[in-house]
Amino acid sequence: MEQILDLAGSKLHEECGIFGISDPGGSCAQTTYYGLYALQHRGQEACGIAAINDRKQSFYKDVGLVSEVFDRATLERLNGTMAVGHVRYATTGAGERENAQPLTIKYVKGTLAVVHNGNLLDVDELRRKFEYQGAIFHTTSDSELIAYAVAQARLRCASVEEAVCQAAAQLRGAFSLLVMSPQKLIACRDPWGFRPLCMGRKGEAILFASESCAIEAVGGRLERELDPGEIVVVQNGQVRSIRDNCQALSHMCIFEYIYFARPDSVIAGQSVHMARQNAGRLLARQHPVDADLVIGVPDSGLDAAQGYALESGIPFGTGFVKNRYIGRTFITPDQASREQAVRIKLSALASEVAGKRVVMVDDSIVRGTTCKQIISLLREAGAVEVHMRVSAPPFIAPCYFGTDIPDREKLIACHNTVEEIRDLAGADSLGYLSLENLRHLAPDAHCGFCQGCFTGRYPIADAEQGPF
Amino acid sequence: MEQILDLAGSKLHEECGIFGISDPGGSCAQTTYYGLYALQHRGQEACGIAAINDRKQSFYKDVGLVSEVFDRATLERLNGTMAVGHVRYATTGAGERENAQPLTIKYVKGTLAVVHNGNLLDVDELRRKFEYQGAIFHTTSDSELIAYAVAQARLRCASVEEAVCQAAAQLRGAFSLLVMSPQKLIACRDPWGFRPLCMGRKGEAILFASESCAIEAVGGRLERELDPGEIVVVQNGQVRSIRDNCQALSHMCIFEYIYFARPDSVIAGQSVHMARQNAGRLLARQHPVDADLVIGVPDSGLDAAQGYALESGIPFGTGFVKNRYIGRTFITPDQASREQAVRIKLSALASEVAGKRVVMVDDSIVRGTTCKQIISLLREAGAVEVHMRVSAPPFIAPCYFGTDIPDREKLIACHNTVEEIRDLAGADSLGYLSLENLRHLAPDAHCGFCQGCFTGRYPIADAEQGPF
Amino acid sequence: MEQILDLAGSKLHEECGIFGISDPGGSCAQTTYYGLYALQHRGQEACGIAAINDRKQSFYKDVGLVSEVFDRATLERLNGTMAVGHVRYATTGAGERENAQPLTIKYVKGTLAVVHNGNLLDVDELRRKFEYQGAIFHTTSDSELIAYAVAQARLRCASVEEAVCQAAAQLRGAFSLLVMSPQKLIACRDPWGFRPLCMGRKGEAILFASESCAIEAVGGRLERELDPGEIVVVQNGQVRSIRDNCQALSHMCIFEYIYFARPDSVIAGQSVHMARQNAGRLLARQHPVDADLVIGVPDSGLDAAQGYALESGIPFGTGFVKNRYIGRTFITPDQASREQAVRIKLSALASEVAGKRVVMVDDSIVRGTTCKQIISLLREAGAVEVHMRVSAPPFIAPCYFGTDIPDREKLIACHNTVEEIRDLAGADSLGYLSLENLRHLAPDAHCGFCQGCFTGRYPIADAEQGPF
Amino acid sequence: MEQILDLAGSKLHEECGIFGISDPGGSCAQTTYYGLYALQHRGQEACGIAAINDRKQSFYKDVGLVSEVFDRATLERLNGTMAVGHVRYATTGAGERENAQPLTIKYVKGTLAVVHNGNLLDVDELRRKFEYQGAIFHTTSDSELIAYAVAQARLRCASVEEAVCQAAAQLRGAFSLLVMSPQKLIACRDPWGFRPLCMGRKGEAILFASESCAIEAVGGRLERELDPGEIVVVQNGQVRSIRDNCQALSHMCIFEYIYFARPDSVIAGQSVHMARQNAGRLLARQHPVDADLVIGVPDSGLDAAQGYALESGIPFGTGFVKNRYIGRTFITPDQASREQAVRIKLSALASEVAGKRVVMVDDSIVRGTTCKQIISLLREAGAVEVHMRVSAPPFIAPCYFGTDIPDREKLIACHNTVEEIRDLAGADSLGYLSLENLRHLAPDAHCGFCQGCFTGRYPIADAEQGPF
Repeated sequence: MEQILDLAGSKLHEECGIFGISDPGGSCAQTTYYGLYALQHRGQEACGIAAINDRKQSFYKDVGLVSEVFDRATLERLNGTMAVGHVRYATTGAGERENAQPLTIKYVKGTLAVVHNGNLLDVDELRRKFEYQGAIFHTTSDSELIAYAVAQARLRCASVEEAVCQAAAQLRGAFSLLVMSPQKLIACRDPWGFRPLCMGRKGEAILFASESCAIEAVGGRLERELDPGEIVVVQNGQVRSIRDNCQALSHMCIFEYIYFARPDSVIAGQSVHMARQNAGRLLARQHPVDADLVIGVPDSGLDAAQGYALESGIPFGTGFVKNRYIGRTFITPDQASREQAVRIKLSALASEVAGKRVVMVDDSIVRGTTCKQIISLLREAGAVEVHMRVSAPPFIAPCYFGTDIPDREKLIACHNTVEEIRDLAGADSLGYLSLENLRHLAPDAHCGFCQGCFTGRYPIADAEQGPF
Repeated sequence: MEQILDLAGSKLHEECGIFGISDPGGSCAQTTYYGLYALQHRGQEACGIAAINDRKQSFYKDVGLVSEVFDRATLERLNGTMAVGHVRYATTGAGERENAQPLTIKYVKGTLAVVHNGNLLDVDELRRKFEYQGAIFHTTSDSELIAYAVAQARLRCASVEEAVCQAAAQLRGAFSLLVMSPQKLIACRDPWGFRPLCMGRKGEAILFASESCAIEAVGGRLERELDPGEIVVVQNGQVRSIRDNCQALSHMCIFEYIYFARPDSVIAGQSVHMARQNAGRLLARQHPVDADLVIGVPDSGLDAAQGYALESGIPFGTGFVKNRYIGRTFITPDQASREQAVRIKLSALASEVAGKRVVMVDDSIVRGTTCKQIISLLREAGAVEVHMRVSAPPFIAPCYFGTDIPDREKLIACHNTVEEIRDLAGADSLGYLSLENLRHLAPDAHCGFCQGCFTGRYPIADAEQGPF
Repeated sequence: MEQILDLAGSKLHEECGIFGISDPGGSCAQTTYYGLYALQHRGQEACGIAAINDRKQSFYKDVGLVSEVFDRATLERLNGTMAVGHVRYATTGAGERENAQPLTIKYVKGTLAVVHNGNLLDVDELRRKFEYQGAIFHTTSDSELIAYAVAQARLRCASVEEAVCQAAAQLRGAFSLLVMSPQKLIACRDPWGFRPLCMGRKGEAILFASESCAIEAVGGRLERELDPGEIVVVQNGQVRSIRDNCQALSHMCIFEYIYFARPDSVIAGQSVHMARQNAGRLLARQHPVDADLVIGVPDSGLDAAQGYALESGIPFGTGFVKNRYIGRTFITPDQASREQAVRIKLSALASEVAGKRVVMVDDSIVRGTTCKQIISLLREAGAVEVHMRVSAPPFIAPCYFGTDIPDREKLIACHNTVEEIRDLAGADSLGYLSLENLRHLAPDAHCGFCQGCFTGRYPIADAEQGPF
Repeated sequence: MEQILDLAGSKLHEECGIFGISDPGGSCAQTTYYGLYALQHRGQEACGIAAINDRKQSFYKDVGLVSEVFDRATLERLNGTMAVGHVRYATTGAGERENAQPLTIKYVKGTLAVVHNGNLLDVDELRRKFEYQGAIFHTTSDSELIAYAVAQARLRCASVEEAVCQAAAQLRGAFSLLVMSPQKLIACRDPWGFRPLCMGRKGEAILFASESCAIEAVGGRLERELDPGEIVVVQNGQVRSIRDNCQALSHMCIFEYIYFARPDSVIAGQSVHMARQNAGRLLARQHPVDADLVIGVPDSGLDAAQGYALESGIPFGTGFVKNRYIGRTFITPDQASREQAVRIKLSALASEVAGKRVVMVDDSIVRGTTCKQIISLLREAGAVEVHMRVSAPPFIAPCYFGTDIPDREKLIACHNTVEEIRDLAGADSLGYLSLENLRHLAPDAHCGFCQGCFTGRYPIADAEQGPF
C-alpha cells in the first residue's frame, strides 16, 4: 500500500484506480474525492474528477495526490449529480499533466468522460487504424483509443451504452472502465476480467469503484462485482446490465490479492487481508523453519507475516519502523550514500530482533537490491539468522495488462536460481510461495486468475507479441 | 498595449500572438520565449511553446504570462532546432489550461504542433462533419478543427504542406497559422488576410511572427509579410512558397493599426505608430477645437494625441499617470467603490491640466463607462473643458474574425447618437474619426482592410450567420 | 507516530524535535535534513535549519513538512561544518512562519542559532523582566526568552557556554536546547530532565538529537543521553561537559515512552518499543478478558496490543487499515457527516474481526469521541464484543512542560468514572493501565519520571501556578 | 517609476514607501493595500501590512509585489481601525523575507508596528550600544534599531509618542517613520527632512504616506507635509503635533523630484511632474541644439523631454516602445547576448526617428552602459544625430540616506569628463543639468535640499564616515 518513495525501485506499480457515482442528491464530486482518496494506493502521480451538473460536464485534473490537487472551491465548482474520478501512477517526464484522467471529450452525441484501469493490447494497430481514418491523438493513453472506439461505434449504435458494448467487444486486453455521458453513467469490465470493478449503493446513489474499500470509505455498501465482460448502465436511478460481451472467462490479476489491493477490500468474494494471511500460512507449511520471531516488511508483508506466525506458532513481532512522512519532493541521498538510503525510510527494531532467529516475510522480490539492504539492517540490529519468505512465486515474465513489471533482464528470478537469490540477498534461507499453493490463497474467490507474471503464460494467447 | 487589468471592461481583446523559428543552430525555445515576450500585448492569459529536437516533439504550456510560465530549466528541456509558440487571451473559467496552445497531436504521419491566431467561421458545421466521421474533440478551440482538417487532408496528400494547403482551402474565416512537423515549419495565412503574419531572418534562422516587433526583439530582420492565402514551408533551411490559395483579396483587420499591434511594428509596410499619429492628425482636421492642451489616454491613445497636437498646433502634454504594477491576482475594489476604481489605475495630472481646456484622445469607446470616469478625473483635477476625440469610428457591429467585441446591446454607439454619447460621458465635445478618414490612416499599407466592426459589412458575405 | 490529520483531535501533541551536528567534513545541513526527517513525528507544522559555514551563519525555515520546506538548492546553500534543526508542532493561525525555529539572532558576540524542545514556566515574569530593561520581542516563543537570557548572561561570562549555563540555571521548566555560535555547538538539558536529548557520533562528527532514531537514520551511533542539567560543548572536534546545573533530579516525561517517541528510539537505556510492549503485558495481567483477538489502534496502539497478545495468549491480529495519504490540505468532511469522518481515515477489517470478541488496545483516551467512533466501526464490521484497553492511566491534569493536553473540561477522565467512560465509548469493558503499573513499563530506564498529567503532581512544586 | 527589470543596473533604487491610516470606520488593511499599490514604484521586492483590530495587532508580509503578496482573505483577516504598510526594495539573498516590514514587536507596553523609509547613520555604534545592554537582533534592518530605541526610551517616558520623540532625537540620518501602538498611530520625520512624508484625510480617516499620490489613489485629500522633525500623533480621531525635534533645517532629497517620486505627487508644494518639466526647460536653455525631434527615455525621461521640447520649440515625439510585461521570474538572456538585451525591453521607433537629428532626454547616467546601448538602438533605427541631455547633474558621490548609488568606482562621472562620457556613450553631444540650474527646478518647493550625490557635501557633516 506504500508506493510513494521507492528508494530502490523495489515495488511494482499498477496504473490506476477509478471511482464513479450517480446520485440524484448531488455532491458527487465531493463523494468522488473521498472515494479516490481511499484508492490513493493505486496511483499517486496524478488524479482528476469530471462531473455532470444539469447535463453540463466540467472537470479538474493535475499531477499530485488527491489531497494536493483538489481544494474546497474546486470541488464545489464541480459538484453535480454524476461524477467519475481517477488516480494514476505514471512514468515521470513531460506530458504527465496531459495524460491525467478523466479524459473529457466532445463527440457526435455530446460530451463523454472516460476513466480507465488496465492496459490494452494491439494499441499500435488500433491507433494506426484510427489514424488512417484521419484521427488525431492528443495523448498516448489507452483511454483516448477507447474514446475513439466508442465515438466511432456510436455512429452505428442507437445508444451510448451500445457503443460502449461494441467498442469493448473490439478491444483486447485489460480494461475496467467508467464512461459518463450527460445522462448516463456506464461501467464496463473487459471479457477476461483482468482488473477488478465493483458496484455499491448508498441511499439512492449508485457507486462504482476499483475496490470495495472506496465504497465503504464513503459510507456505501458493496453490492457486487461486475462480471467479466459485463456493462452496467445507470440512468435516472435505474440500473441495467448488458451482458453481450460476457464469456465463460475469468482471469483476475492474482497480484491484486498479493500486493495491489487494500487489505480491507473484498474482491470476487475474497477478503484481501485473508488472502494475504492465507499466503503466509501456506508459506509456513511449504517452507517451515526453526526460528524465534516472524516479522513482515511494512506495509504489504505484514498480513502474510501474521499468517506465517499463526500457522507456525512462532511469535509475530514488529521488526521494522517505517518513516511515513515522505512527499513528492523528498530529496533522495546522493549516489555515494545510496546503499544506506534504505535506513532513512526503514529502521530495524533492535529491541525486538537482537539475538533472535528471524523469519522475514515480504510479498515479492523484484530486483533483489532492496531485500539485500533490509536483511543487512536486520543483521546490524542483532538478528542471528534471517530466513526470508516471499508470499508469491518468483517474477519471471512481464505483465501486458497494466502492472509495471521491469524488463526480464532486471528481474532477479529470470537469471538466478532460488539458492543464488538467497546468496545475493544474504539470507540464511529463502522460500517462495509455490505456483501450486498460489491457487489456494483465495479460497473464497469466485473467479479464475491471470498468473502470467509467474508463469509467462497469459489468458490472451499472443499477448506477448503486443507492442509495448 | 496594456490589457491586463481592465477595470471597466473598456478595452477590446484579440485572441493571440504566434511566433515560430527554424534554426539549425538550436536554442529555438529560448528565442521563441523572447519572441512571445514581445507579443505579450496580444494575449496575457496563457502561453506555450512546442519544439522539435532531433525530430522529437516536446512542449510546455500553462496559464500565465510568458515570464511566469517558463523557467530556465523548462526552456532548456525544450530547446531544439524548431519551435512554435503562442500567447493567448482567453475568457475565464474551467478548461483554460486545456485550451492553451500550441496544440500538439499525433496523427497518421507523426507529430504536429499547431498555433493559431484568428477565428474560423462555420465551426459548428465543421465540427459536426468530423464528428459524423467518428472524431472526438478535447477542446473547443479552432486549432483542433484545423488539426483535424490537416490530418484528414494528409490522407489524400503527398506532403504535410499540401495537406495544410488543402485544409486551408476548405476553411473560412481568419487564420494565421504555424504548423510544425518533425521536419518542417509551415506558415499559413488565410486567403482574406485578416490577421497579420510576417517572416524574418536572423543569420541562418527563419522566423515567423504575428508582428515585426517580435522579429526585431530577438535580433532578427523583417523580410516580408506573407500574402493572403500564402503558405511558406521551411525545411532544412530551404524556404518555399505555395500560393495555391492566394486570391486577389486583402482584408486586414484595420483595428490592428488602431489598437492591437505594438507601435513599433510595421504591418503591410505601414508603421503602426505612424498610422496612429495619422489618425490623430486626421481627427484634428476633422474635429478641430479651440483648446490649451492635447493629452492621450495611456497607453494606446498617446500616439494619436501626438498626431492631433502636431496637426492642430496645440501643445501636447501628459494628462495621466498610469499605475503599471498590476498582476493577475490584483484585488479589485468592492462593488460599492467600483465607480472610483479607475483612480487606482489612472491618476489625472492636476499640475498639467488644471485651468486648461483639454483635448483628450483615446482609440475607442466601447461601453462608455470608463471614458465617463476618466473625464470625471480630469474635471476633478481642474480641467475647465474636456473635448474627447476618438481615433476610430464608432463600434456598431460584432467581429467574427477574432476580436472580442461585446454584444450589440453593450456597444454604446449602437443605441446612442454621438451627441448622446457625449452627454453620457460628460464631455464638452466629442468627435470620432470618420469612415472616410479611416481609409487614410495607413497610406503606406499595401493591402485592403476589413472594417466590419465599424460598418457591419464583412469581407465574407454571410459571416454574421456564423454560429458564434 | 501519526499526527497529521487528527480528525477528532484525539491525539496529544508535543511541540518539537531538535537535531544538531558538528562535522569538520561539512554537508551538515544535508545530514540535519535527514535527522529532522527521522524526527518528523515530533512536529509537522514547520521546520528549519541554521548552519555555520566558515563562521558565517545562514538559515531557512518555513511552515510545512521537512520534505516540503527544503529543496536541494536550499540545502546546498546552507551546507557547512555545523548545523542545528527543528521540527515544530504549532497551533494554527497568524505568525506561524515567524515562530518557526531555529531562532537566529545577532548579539554582542556575534550570531547565535537556538532550537528548543519543551516549555518554560514563569515566561510572563521573565518577559516582563527583560521588557523592563528595554527589550523588544519579535515572537511569543520560549526560544526568544532563552536567547535573551543567554545574551544577557554573556555580558557577565567569559564564554558562550558559560552564558548558556548561567541562563539555564535561571530558567524553570522543560528545555532541551541546542545553541550554535560561529565556533561552538552547545547542547543543554534542563535540570529536571523533562525532555530527552541524546548524543551520538558518526566518524568525526558529533551529533545531538531528541531521539536516538535520528542518529541512527543518518548512519550514526548513539553514544549516550545528556544527564539532566548537563551542558555539552563541541568545539574544533573537542567535546566538553559542564555539569554545574546537574542535580540529583530526574523527571523524564513518561509519555515519551507511551506515545511521543518513535518505537525504534532508545531513551534512558530503555527501548521505546519494549516499553510499549511492556505496557501491553502489564495491562493483560491487570485487566484480563476472555476474547478471541487482540488488535491495536494504528499506529501507536500496535506495540502495546502485541504485548497484550503475548501475555494473554490471545492471538494478535490486524483490526484496522489506516489511510496514510493525508496532506496538509486534506478537505475534511462537512460538519453534517463529521461523525462518520473517522472512516475516511480508518477502516475496520471485517474479515478479521467479524464474529469475534475483540480486545482493542490504544495508548490514550483524551476526549473520548474518537474511541467511540472506532468502537462503532468495529461493531459494524461484526465484532461481537469490544474490550478496550488503554496502555496508560487516565489523563486528569494539564502538562506545563510541552505536551498539548486540552483543558480539564475537555478531558473525559476529569468528569467521568471509568465505568461512565466505558458506557460513553460503547465498549463492553474498559481498562486503563494503573499508576502502579506505569512505573514498571520501563524497567531498563536509568531515570525517574514526570507523571504529572496522570497525577496532577509535578516535579516543580508550583508549576500549576505558572501563566500558561 | 519603472524599476522591476533593470537589465543593466542603470537605475537607482530607493529603499521604500510607507503608508498608514487611522479610520474608526475600519477596513484599514484594504485601504493600505491600495495605498501601497500606489507606492509600488518605491519598492518591488517585498511588502507588508500590520493592522490593529480591537487593540489587537496582526500582520502579513512577504517577498513580492503588493498584488502578489495579498489575497482577499488575508486582507479581510487583517482589517481593523488602524494599519501601517510598507513596500521595500531589497538586495537579493537570504533573509529577504525576514527583513520585510512592518517590523512587529512586543515591548514593555504592548505591541508596536514600525515602518521606515530612509537610512540611519551610526548604525554599528547604535547596535553595539544596545548589544552591550544584552539586546538581541533578529534582522539587520534600521527599523529594529529604531524599535529598540523607542522601547528603551519608553522606560523613561510617560507615553509612546514621547518615546518616539526621544528616540528620534538620538538618531542621525534619514527616517520617515510610522509607529503604531494598540491605540495610537504616530508619524515621525527626521529633523533634516531627507525623505518625504505627508498627511491627508478622507472623511474621518487620517492618512499618512510617503507621497501624495497614495493619498489620492485611495480617494483622500492631501492636507500637508510633516515638517522636518515633526511628530504627529493620532488617537481616537484626534491629531496632535509634537515639534520638539523641529529645527530650522530642511534637506529633502532632490532626487525625489528628478526620479523617485511619481509624477502626480506633490512634494513640499511642488508638483513632481512640473519639476521634471522644469528640468527639461532649464536643460534646453543650458544646452540648446539644432535638432528635429525631442524624445525621452521611458518612463522617467518623458516629462523632462516634454519640457525640453516646449522650451526649445523642437517637436516632441515618441522615440521608444517599452515592454512592460516583466515579472520577477523573467529569464534574462545569456551573458553572450547581454549586450543586445536592452532591445528585449526597449525598442526604438524607426518610423519616428529615422533620418532625424534627435535630442534624447534621460534623468541620469549611472554606469553609462545602458545609455550607450540605447543610443545604439536609435542609430540602428536611423537617427542621424543623437544629442543626449540629462535632467540632473553628474553623480559623483554616494548617498548615505537611503538611495542605492553604486560605489564611486562604478560611477562613470567619477572617472570621466563630460566629453569622455559623451564619447563612451556614442552621443553627438551630451549636456547635464548644472548644479546652478538644479536649484531652480522646484520653484514652488518650500524646503531646502540635499544634493549630496551631486556635490559630495552632505547636510550631516560627517555622514561619509558612517559605517556603510
